[in-house]
This record gives sequence, C-alpha cells and structure tokens, in this order.
Amino acid sequence: MIQFPKPTVEQFFRTYAITNFAVSQDEARLVFNTNMNGKMNLWAMDLPETFPYQFAQKDESCSSIKFDAKGRFVLAGFDNDGDENYQIYALPYEGGLPQPLITGDADEKYFFAELSEDGEHIYYCTSENNPLYLNTRVRNLVDGTDELLHEGETAPTLLTAVSDDETSFVYNQSFANTYVPAFVKSGNETYDLTPDRDVVHVAGNPIFTDNETIYFITDYKSEYAYVAKFDLKTKQFSSELEIEGESIQEMKWNKAHHALYLVTENGVTDGLYRYDVTTGDVAILEKPIDVINQIHVSKADNVYILGRSATQPPNIYQSTSGADWKQLTNNRVLGLTASDMVEPEVVSYPSFDGMEIEALLFKAKPENDNGHTIFWPHGGPQAAERKEFRSMFQCFLNRGYTIFAPNFRGSTGYGSSFVKLVEQDWGHGPRLDCVSGIEWLFDKGITDREKLFLVGGSYGGYMALLLHGRHPEYFKAVIDIFGPSDLFTFESSVPPHWKPIMQRWLGDPVADKERFIKDSPVTYLDGMVKPMLVIQGAKDPRVVKEESDQIVAKLKDKGRDVEYLVLEDEGHGFSKKENEIKVYQQMLDFLEQHQG
Amino acid sequence: MIQFPKPTVEQFFRTYAITNFAVSQDEARLVFNTNMNGKMNLWAMDLPETFPYQFAQKDESCSSIKFDAKGRFVLAGFDNDGDENYQIYALPYEGGLPQPLITGDADEKYFFAELSEDGEHIYYCTSENNPLYLNTRVRNLVDGTDELLHEGETAPTLLTAVSDDETSFVYNQSFANTYVPAFVKSGNETYDLTPDRDVVHVAGNPIFTDNETIYFITDYKSEYAYVAKFDLKTKQFSSELEIEGESIQEMKWNKAHHALYLVTENGVTDGLYRYDVTTGDVAILEKPIDVINQIHVSKADNVYILGRSATQPPNIYQSTSGADWKQLTNNRVLGLTASDMVEPEVVSYPSFDGMEIEALLFKAKPENDNGHTIFWPHGGPQAAERKEFRSMFQCFLNRGYTIFAPNFRGSTGYGSSFVKLVEQDWGHGPRLDCVSGIEWLFDKGITDREKLFLVGGSYGGYMALLLHGRHPEYFKAVIDIFGPSDLFTFESSVPPHWKPIMQRWLGDPVADKERFIKDSPVTYLDGMVKPMLVIQGAKDPRVVKEESDQIVAKLKDKGRDVEYLVLEDEGHGFSKKENEIKVYQQMLDFLEQHQG
Repeated sequence: MIQFPKPTVEQFFRTYAITNFAVSQDEARLVFNTNMNGKMNLWAMDLPETFPYQFAQKDESCSSIKFDAKGRFVLAGFDNDGDENYQIYALPYEGGLPQPLITGDADEKYFFAELSEDGEHIYYCTSENNPLYLNTRVRNLVDGTDELLHEGETAPTLLTAVSDDETSFVYNQSFANTYVPAFVKSGNETYDLTPDRDVVHVAGNPIFTDNETIYFITDYKSEYAYVAKFDLKTKQFSSELEIEGESIQEMKWNKAHHALYLVTENGVTDGLYRYDVTTGDVAILEKPIDVINQIHVSKADNVYILGRSATQPPNIYQSTSGADWKQLTNNRVLGLTASDMVEPEVVSYPSFDGMEIEALLFKAKPENDNGHTIFWPHGGPQAAERKEFRSMFQCFLNRGYTIFAPNFRGSTGYGSSFVKLVEQDWGHGPRLDCVSGIEWLFDKGITDREKLFLVGGSYGGYMALLLHGRHPEYFKAVIDIFGPSDLFTFESSVPPHWKPIMQRWLGDPVADKERFIKDSPVTYLDGMVKPMLVIQGAKDPRVVKEESDQIVAKLKDKGRDVEYLVLEDEGHGFSKKENEIKVYQQMLDFLEQHQG
Repeated sequence: MIQFPKPTVEQFFRTYAITNFAVSQDEARLVFNTNMNGKMNLWAMDLPETFPYQFAQKDESCSSIKFDAKGRFVLAGFDNDGDENYQIYALPYEGGLPQPLITGDADEKYFFAELSEDGEHIYYCTSENNPLYLNTRVRNLVDGTDELLHEGETAPTLLTAVSDDETSFVYNQSFANTYVPAFVKSGNETYDLTPDRDVVHVAGNPIFTDNETIYFITDYKSEYAYVAKFDLKTKQFSSELEIEGESIQEMKWNKAHHALYLVTENGVTDGLYRYDVTTGDVAILEKPIDVINQIHVSKADNVYILGRSATQPPNIYQSTSGADWKQLTNNRVLGLTASDMVEPEVVSYPSFDGMEIEALLFKAKPENDNGHTIFWPHGGPQAAERKEFRSMFQCFLNRGYTIFAPNFRGSTGYGSSFVKLVEQDWGHGPRLDCVSGIEWLFDKGITDREKLFLVGGSYGGYMALLLHGRHPEYFKAVIDIFGPSDLFTFESSVPPHWKPIMQRWLGDPVADKERFIKDSPVTYLDGMVKPMLVIQGAKDPRVVKEESDQIVAKLKDKGRDVEYLVLEDEGHGFSKKENEIKVYQQMLDFLEQHQG
C-alpha cells in the first residue's frame, strides 16, 4: 500500500502560539490570543461550542484581554511588531476592529491594570511623564476624565490590585526580579504588605478577598513562596499557607466558594491546588499538562487553564472545580501525536562547586539520532527550562539532535536563594554550571566530544556567546539568538523602566567595571573561532539590535565565519509564523552544514 | 461609555472560503478545505469535538478529499496557484504533508474519480496522452500497476461511477454544459443510460445502488432534471422521481436506509429532499441555509452539508437524517451578525422580448446608502446569482452601494430551455436582458441614471466589457475581472479539454465569424470611454491573461483611463486572503474615486 516518509521538520512549524485568554463572566465566550492564522490575533469560541472565530483583527501581540462584566465591550492591550509598548484598545462585545482607547505616542506604554466591576473605571499604568517608574492613572468612561492615582518613585511601580469599593490599591515596586515589595494605599495611608520592605523578597498577586483583607504570594523570609495575608483593619501580616518544597506562583480567588486556586512551581513542572479558605483544606488537583501558563476561575467554580507539556503544544482546558478536564482548543503538531515526540528525562549533575544542577535531557529517538547534541542554556536568566512544548526542540529532535538544557544557578523553581545566584554574577557561576553540564554529557557517554553544538536565546544567547568565547574547544558551531554581547552597552540600552532593576540584577557599569569586562562576551572575541549564526529581531526592546550588530561586525572584521539573520518586524521573539519558519529553517540548515 | 464606529469594509475580508469536505466512514473525522489561515489548506475536526486542527500543509487549492475506508490514508487532489491542473496526493490518516501519488508534468491533470471500498484501486482521469478527451486509468496500490481503463473519444470523458464489484463503469461525455450524456461499460458491452444520446441532455451523478442498477439525474426530454434509473439486466431506462418545477442537482445514496437525498435548484435557492426508494415517500427537509454547495450522507444516515445564504458565509452543518441541524464550523464576518448585512429581494422584470428575468436586488441599508448602484452580471454564463454569501457584495453594501444582479437568459435554475439561450448567443439576448434590467432600475426609481457602476467577473467580465463598449452612456465606471475580451482569442486559448464543448457553447470562429466579431467586446473599443479597472490572475487557465492584456493595451493606446491589476499567483478566482483583500480594496478605491 502507500508508504509515507517519516515526519519532516516542516510539520513542527505548524503549531501555533496561544499566549493568553479571558472568559466572559457568564462563561459564554472565551477569547484567546493566537497566531493560528499566521499572525497574532484574538479569536473566540462561544462555549459550549468550540469552533473558533476571529474576534479581533490587529496582527499584533496582545498582552491583556478584559471583558466588561455587563457585556458592552472588551479591552485589549496591543503592542507594535513586538516592541512591547502595549497600549489599550476597546472592542465591541461581539468583536471587530480594535479602537484606540488609552493610547499615545508609539514609544509610550499603557498597561492595563484593572476594570471596575461596573465597567466605568479603567485603571492603568503608563510610561507617559514617568518613563522610569511609571504612573498609575484611572480613566472614567462615563465622564471621560483621566486622573493620576499614583506617581511611581524609586522603582517601576505597577498597580496590581484594587478593592471592590475602589478605595484601596495595592502597588508593586520592582527593584529586581527577586525584589518586588508591595504596599497598599488606602485613603491617605500607605502600608507595606510585609513587615520589612528592606528584606529582599517578592510580594505579588495581591487579591482583595474583601475590602479590608488582602491575600498575596510572598517569599518574605522563606526559600519558597507562600500565601500570606494583610489585614487592613489591624495592619497585621500573617502567613496563611505554604506548600512544602514548592513555590506558589499564581493564585485565583473564587469568592462564592471561598476558595483559592494555587499554581506552584516545582522544578521543571507545576502543581495545582485548591485551598478552601474557610475549612483550611488543601486539595491536590489533577492537571492535564505539566506546565500552567495561565489560570482562570469562574464564579461557578469552573477552572480554565492554558498550559503545555514537553510533547503538548499550548492548549486551553476547562474543568469543574479542577476535575474532569476537557480540552477546548486543539493545537497540535501537523500529523504527529505525543508519542512521535520526545519526553525529556529529568537529570541532575554536580557542578564545579558541588552544587546539584537539574537539567532536561531530550534524547533523540534511535531511529532519528544523528549523533549530535545541542547544548541549550535557557533565557531569563531568572527563568527555567521546563516541560514546556517548544516546536524548535521537537523539530531538532526529529532531525536527530539530542538536546541538553541545564537549569544553571539563577534558574527559578529551586528556591529563592538559588535564583539570586545569577544576580551580579552573569558570567561566572552559571557559565561553570554549563561547563560542568557539558563535561557530564561527555562523561556519561551521552555526547561525543566532537559532536556538540551550542544554541541559546536572550540570556541563553549571551551565554552562548560567552561559552563560545571562553570555551570554543567544546563546540562545532554556535547559534546566538538576540543575546547581549557587551554588558556595558546592554545595560545602557534596556527599556527605561528596566533601568532601576539593573543594579541588583546585573550590577553597576562604573562600580563593577572589571566584572562587566570579564563577563562580556565581546571581551573574548579572539576565542570565537567556530562558525556562528546570529539572529535578531530589529524591534527588540530588551536586547536591542545593536547588541547583535556589533558582535557580528567585529567577528566579520576578524574574518570569522558568521551568518546574520535580522527579522525586521519582530521583537524579543518571533510572533509571525512565516518569520518563525524562516528562523528555524536557517538554524537547521546551519547545524546540518556544520555537522560534517 | 465607549462608542464604536460602524463596521468597516476591512471586517468583511476576514471571512474565509470552505470549498469542500469529506467525512471518514466512522464519522470520527471531518476534513475540509479552507483558507482559514490565509492560504488554502486542509483542516480537520475529530467529531464530536469541533475545534479544528491543520490536517495538511500545501498552500494550494484542493479539489477532492477521499478517506480510505480502512483508515490507512487520505487522498487529496491539489493544483498549483489556481492553474486547475489537479494531481493526486496521499496523506497519512492522521494528516501531515501531502505526498505525490498520481502526478506528472505541471501542465497535466490527474482527476480523482473513485477509490475502491478495499482501498486498493484508485480510478482517475488524466490529460496525459489525451489532452482533449482524457483517459481513465486505474492504479493498483498493492502491486503498483497502472492500467488504461478507457480512452476518451469525441468529447472530454470522465469516469463518474464504479460498481461495487468493479465490473461496471459509468462515463460522462461533455459536449457542452447542457449536453453531457452518459454510458456504462460493463464487461465488453457499452450502453447509453438514456434512450437517445443525440437528444441534447445531461445525465449526471450516476450511483450504483447495486451492481446492476444505476440511479442518475437527467433532464432527458424534460425542462427540469429528475431522477432516472438504468437497469443493467434489462437495459431499460425509466424515470424514477421528479420534483415539480425544480431541477434535481445532486443526490447521495444511503444504502442501509434505501434513501436518496436530493438537492434541487429552484431559482435563487436550493431545496433538500429525502426520497425513500422502497416506499416512494418524498420528504421535504428543513435546511439551515439557502444554498447547498456539498452534501454527504453517512452510513448512520447523518447528513452533512456545506452551504451558505446571502448573509451567511460558507459553513458545514450536521444533522440526523436531515433534521436537528447543528453548525459545526463558525465562519463569520468579523464582529458582524446576519442582521448587520443585507438579505436580497428577489425581483423580476420583463426583458426586451417580454421574457421574465429574475434578479437579486441588494438594497444598501439607509444608514449606509451612498446613492450608487452596482450592476453585476454573473459569471458562467450557465450559472446564476443566488442567495450565496459574497464578501464582496456585503462589503460593497456596507460601503453604501446597492447591487443588482440579474439572472439573464442562459442562467441556471429556470429550466433546461432557458439555460440554453446563451449558447451561441453570448452577446445579444443576455446583453439586452441586462439593458432591460438597467432601464427597469431607472424606471423603478431604484437607481439614478447618473449613479450606476458596472462590475463583473469571468463571463460577467466579458459582459461588463461588452456593455461598456456598446452602452457606455449608462455607466460611471466599469470593473472587468478576468473577462474574455475577444471571442476569437478566447476560443483558441481555453484548456484543451474544454475545446470540444466550445462549438455548442460559443460557436465556431470560422462558420460564425460575423457573430464572433459582433459579440466580441474588442469590436467596441471606441465606445469604452469610461474609466476602467481590469483585474486578472496570471495563472488563469480559463480566461488567460492575454485576454486582459490585449484590451488594456488597446485602451491605453487610445489614451483611455484604465487601471490594470495582475495577481501573479492566482488563477480564475482569488484563493489567497491577502490577494483577495488587495483586489477588494482596489475595487473599492476605484469606485469611490469615480463616484464624484
């Protein structure tokens, strides 16, 4: 009969992104942000029917979707070609073309914060007049007024919760990814949510369970984030619930059922719990995927999650109180099932100083194996490589590459101390964790010394450049995707509201000049002798194009073998399907070309 | 609160095509051909779930989809950028990338005809070695052999039915759209399905209800097509069922239930019936839309239709024996409901010779009305303007144009004699029907004499050119979409297998030279004094680009105001979303510019 060839790389390109969603109050409509039709747009399904229809045409990424509770409009935040300057648009409740609502100059940001229950007040944070620290304002849709509510100071300040009576407001200040204290403004008074704001900690996800009680998540004086409570009457802070060995990452409140749904981070997977605030019962919930990207709880206690596993692209699932999960969307790899793909092994190895480093090892299936390994330092750096579907990984695996992705020091999911280890140490400890991982691959016989590639993006691109410059002997060829090449220029080119966090995160270019030199990839130009492919989005606001331009120019000056691919209409990531395909294809061609 | 502007034309561009579908034998999978993601591709839903996933990546139009009954593969016929040279590809049952199966040179055709129940034999018709009349061949998938089954003669000959035991084969010969007799080859014998093949008639949609009984649809000696039967044992033809005043257009057989489902054509809408062959009962079925483009009946007697109404884009619906329709897909105009669009009035008017002509009158809503009317002669010409959603119409209506679309003589849906009136009379009767329609619009006060535009495609483009040349005083401006401009060159440039039908349809360029001259738009160049926009697909195999090139060149030579838009990667229609938008936008701009 008919014989079919093995699945080809082209098939992996046809999955799509689903980045976020919202559910209307009556649960009759679910709107989600996806590039299902090639570019990022909003699509909807009218539940219980699931066949989706296009809800908004914008061809841009959407950061926030908010239904008016009374069914009159939907708010959505769109940026421009990935520049992350999100501005607020309104859509008719039945969908259509987004109309500018709270917008301004192209380089200003207007982040949606909250919509009042009556739909009359939009709370938002903006770079307008305060690019470093941001201002919080409220737009009154009835009389058209727009008032300043809070002027950010000291650090970028975001409004993160509003009490139902709209008299109390919680703000977060970001001094670093690991240092985000919170305070509440109530009338003329201001109180910190935690006892000592000078202790480095995060206090996020505030929820007013009533007008005088705030639940939030914090790692205040703890390795793992837990649920805490602040009582506006007594001004008392108290610890409410911790999950042993897991960091609570996100929570949602169901008022009618007095329940908190908790998503925890535990190494490379997530946990899901239901906490009954009245009885104190904590139930572990089954979940249909390993990693939860977003959770929504309806009044009727239906739980919606957007999530993925290593072999499952992002999809949206629906449940009754976290049980009987039903998959609503059907994002899949063209013609392939999970069993055609590779589930990673979770391994660990000792680093140079004895610290245990966890890693994901994706082994190419024997029938595909080409004998080569790709070493993948993840981005962030305060993030982690987790059991999350990546087209790129499964595509490379199918082509025969084994992939090794270590969660070097600085990664999230392993406690508060571990994640801080990369702060003001971008280039030493994490780099040596990578080196130990490489040696471990060789020692275990997983990888042949002559058959290792290096690929990374963002901080992982930085690490790829640095490892290349300092340890070129390990690699056959290197791919850098929008990685900072020079810490001095990187530090000075990040978005204004990032600047306040740079001190703790990276350090000071004057005080730490020698470390900046030591940890800048550009310092090791002479070492970068292997073939290289550099990929950059021209509109990237995080790692600006100049970071790639300069390293490419310098390498070319030295006559090195370097290819440079610039995507004109992309930012820090590739949101357009055709761009994504172009990037992957060139990466594959590059790797294949340098296997020999 | 938030005020939204009226829906804009851009929103109409976001509907998509659904051109055909297939359902697996167990009804667990439905595959359909759509440009939902911007280009034509196959998508699937695994019923009862309806969220679709991409099933095949080809970015090309698909003419046929066939499931192997044993669930091993799916066959699909794809062309290349609309060139209509369909060739046969195979797909894994779970979807993937189409693999060439029965293919050849780019200019050859391989039309899928039938797949045997055991999935081992593929019957197909090909232009290879017989470009005028086509050959029918059978590919044996088990031993790889490929045999000639029938050599086409006299007229393009297509295999249209195979008996279950694969010993009897029905073929149709196309002498004209209105003259398509059928014969059955059984062993060494050949029999005509109708008593006299020399009587001009159509005998289509043959179905073997058992190995010796053929049901088919014919208008043999009748104004309206009816169900007839041919008995292979007795060689007897008999009329089986007629529906008064309606032409049966398509039928599907449910063997287990001894039922025939019939789709009839009745002017501007379709009818749907269930005929119980055992009892003779005929039931009228409700249908969720006005026009049925495809019907499928499952073994379990579930009925699937693809169809549309004037305000409903194409969607697929499912029912139990034709009742309790459920909409499976959700193709809609972005942000609009049917009530935001215009349902046409069905009107009729007397033509120059007293013949009644039916027409669709779409009146712009008062709040949109710009006072202008678009006169739209449909394509075909042996087709009709029906209650079928057209983005273009609803978009123009929303912009304020009233649209008038007459079913001039030659249109289908009004009996066999009426449809033949355009044969060998392309430019007189039908043109005068149009002229009478225009005068009727003026007489009724629907249209102001100074506010009429003329737009048409294919035969409608030809008619637009001809009306422009002979009656320029009526129109402000004219748009011709791939219309033949010169009957001599048109006649000589159609695809080879069309040539045999040209004699009856259009006439002979030598014998009918004077009529060809009289009815060729190019004859009336001097009259074409109004601004014109000409649109053409470079790969159009039906009306080749030269037809537009030459008229544009001649008009430009005369210094006339003519715009020319060529779509490089399109054929006789616009399958790619971005091309469609480009065409519509330019048409709208052109009309708006010439309103003044």
